Amino acid sequence: MSKGRIFSGMQPSGKFHLGNYMGALENWVKLQNDYECFFSIVDLHALTSAYADTSKIPENIYNMALDWLSAGLDPEKNVIFVQSKVKEHAELHLLLSMMTPLSWLERVPTYKDKLQQLGAQGKDINTYGFLGYPELMTADIILYKAGFVPVGEDQLPHLELAREITRRFNNLYSPIFPEPQGLMSEAAVLPGIDGRKMSKSYGNTIPFASSPDELRERVRMIITDPQRIKKTDKGNPDVCVAFKFHKLFNKEEIVEIDQACRSASIGCVDCKKRLAEKMVHIMGAMHVRRQEYEGKPEKIREILEAGTERARKVAAATMEEVREAMHLQ
Amino acid sequence: MSKGRIFSGMQPSGKFHLGNYMGALENWVKLQNDYECFFSIVDLHALTSAYADTSKIPENIYNMALDWLSAGLDPEKNVIFVQSKVKEHAELHLLLSMMTPLSWLERVPTYKDKLQQLGAQGKDINTYGFLGYPELMTADIILYKAGFVPVGEDQLPHLELAREITRRFNNLYSPIFPEPQGLMSEAAVLPGIDGRKMSKSYGNTIPFASSPDELRERVRMIITDPQRIKKTDKGNPDVCVAFKFHKLFNKEEIVEIDQACRSASIGCVDCKKRLAEKMVHIMGAMHVRRQEYEGKPEKIREILEAGTERARKVAAATMEEVREAMHLQ
Repeated sequence: MSKGRIFSGMQPSGKFHLGNYMGALENWVKLQNDYECFFSIVDLHALTSAYADTSKIPENIYNMALDWLSAGLDPEKNVIFVQSKVKEHAELHLLLSMMTPLSWLERVPTYKDKLQQLGAQGKDINTYGFLGYPELMTADIILYKAGFVPVGEDQLPHLELAREITRRFNNLYSPIFPEPQGLMSEAAVLPGIDGRKMSKSYGNTIPFASSPDELRERVRMIITDPQRIKKTDKGNPDVCVAFKFHKLFNKEEIVEIDQACRSASIGCVDCKKRLAEKMVHIMGAMHVRRQEYEGKPEKIREILEAGTERARKVAAATMEEVREAMHLQ
Repeated sequence: MSKGRIFSGMQPSGKFHLGNYMGALENWVKLQNDYECFFSIVDLHALTSAYADTSKIPENIYNMALDWLSAGLDPEKNVIFVQSKVKEHAELHLLLSMMTPLSWLERVPTYKDKLQQLGAQGKDINTYGFLGYPELMTADIILYKAGFVPVGEDQLPHLELAREITRRFNNLYSPIFPEPQGLMSEAAVLPGIDGRKMSKSYGNTIPFASSPDELRERVRMIITDPQRIKKTDKGNPDVCVAFKFHKLFNKEEIVEIDQACRSASIGCVDCKKRLAEKMVHIMGAMHVRRQEYEGKPEKIREILEAGTERARKVAAATMEEVREAMHLQ
């Protein structure tokens, strides 16, 4: 019995790594068992930062779908689709824009931060569309009358705005939308292999698409306690990046590994080998699924098209109600 | 042989009067002979100021279509349709928003003026959608690859912005859009019957839907030279509102009427009777056409649906090109 409907999306930015997986996708894989889920590859959102060069979008969409399927999202159970293929997102976005005070969007705390952050990367995203980002996000959610949205702490302001816009619509026209609730997830934050935030621009990621051997190779490069020069030096797991990985992927052994490190009874190379094998094991099923789909763009396309059809039906029914509520016949 | 394609639209604001006709529709009726015209009842634009109460929109759309048909727009020759029925307007608007600098919209000269003006009327239109008004207007025009847009002087900044956005799209992706050119019309400005600007809020309009008798009654109420108390007083046509109407509707007789007024050989009542009969004659064909359509919502609906179908086909073909140019598959 479903606990309700979820909408969530990810931008096909072509940078999917293990940190992204741990931050969101891992949670989705769990959620699909309890909720009716609409998972969207939100290519329209990607345009806010990628409008100047959109050439990679098709490839990124394909890879994102592959990542999701590899991770274990079930295309039968969930509605998996590409946002831009369902025109109703744009339509509802436009209608909501007419009743959304400009100040609500301008005051979103992340708005100016993000402008600066991407500005520093040389991207001019000071556009009308970027200001409307949370408006489009609201349309995405309520178009499917989703009652729940998985969120991290940083997305709470967006969710609060979505709820506010929803209330305004319901008050002005007709109470057809549920106010979406946030499903807080204890998102595990995986550091990069150098200990900084995992990010493609730092070159410190573990690509989610890694094969077992690539995974072993990246794990081998994880930085450990910099004070531990020789294998006989005693280590300090508290400052070791590899130990942070153990905590996430190898919970059962962390007490033992903590002691072995501090007593120098295990060296960093062996310690990371144990980590790597554990990770290879955990990701084994994903690797198998990836091989099943890899190099089969036709299959991926079919899955996305079937998902789009299902999404479209729900979206079209909602827009019927919206148009009626707004007297747009 | 068509001189090119035109797009133009009017908001179904339910206030259509003779001043509106003279300001734009009269020109459209001429243009339809030389151009391939897309005339749209832009209900989405109407939402920028009417979002708080949309209950009148269906009626206003119906009345606007009736006004247009009465005025002589030929539904076979022109594509006459309702904007919100063609989802591609919203879709293109959203895509253009991603590449439109916020500052381009903020600096539109009419933007702050209009905010204040409608604010003074108690309408809060400081919304995201209202800021995006010229963006939607751009989408409207280029969706049909219209080469020409009939404009008054006050709309030149909007047209310039539309051209700028069009160039930006063409440069970033692919040169698929013509830059729309303005067709300046010498829009005749018809004053209200009290000499101020004709406006429903002043109660000084002549409704475009007036029957011959209603027309005569409104013309009877037009203010004349206030210094001329008695019929034997000599009048001054330069300060007479009725004379301004003669200049527009009764060109052939203005020299004679000017002299007759100055010499007091015609009284204001008779002068306005002559004007009224002239206007009844000019609008006779419109009156007949109105009677043909009036009370036949089914017929109007069929005409709009047929127009929508035609518009949709062109819009869908354009969006195919847009999506290809933007790599949205």
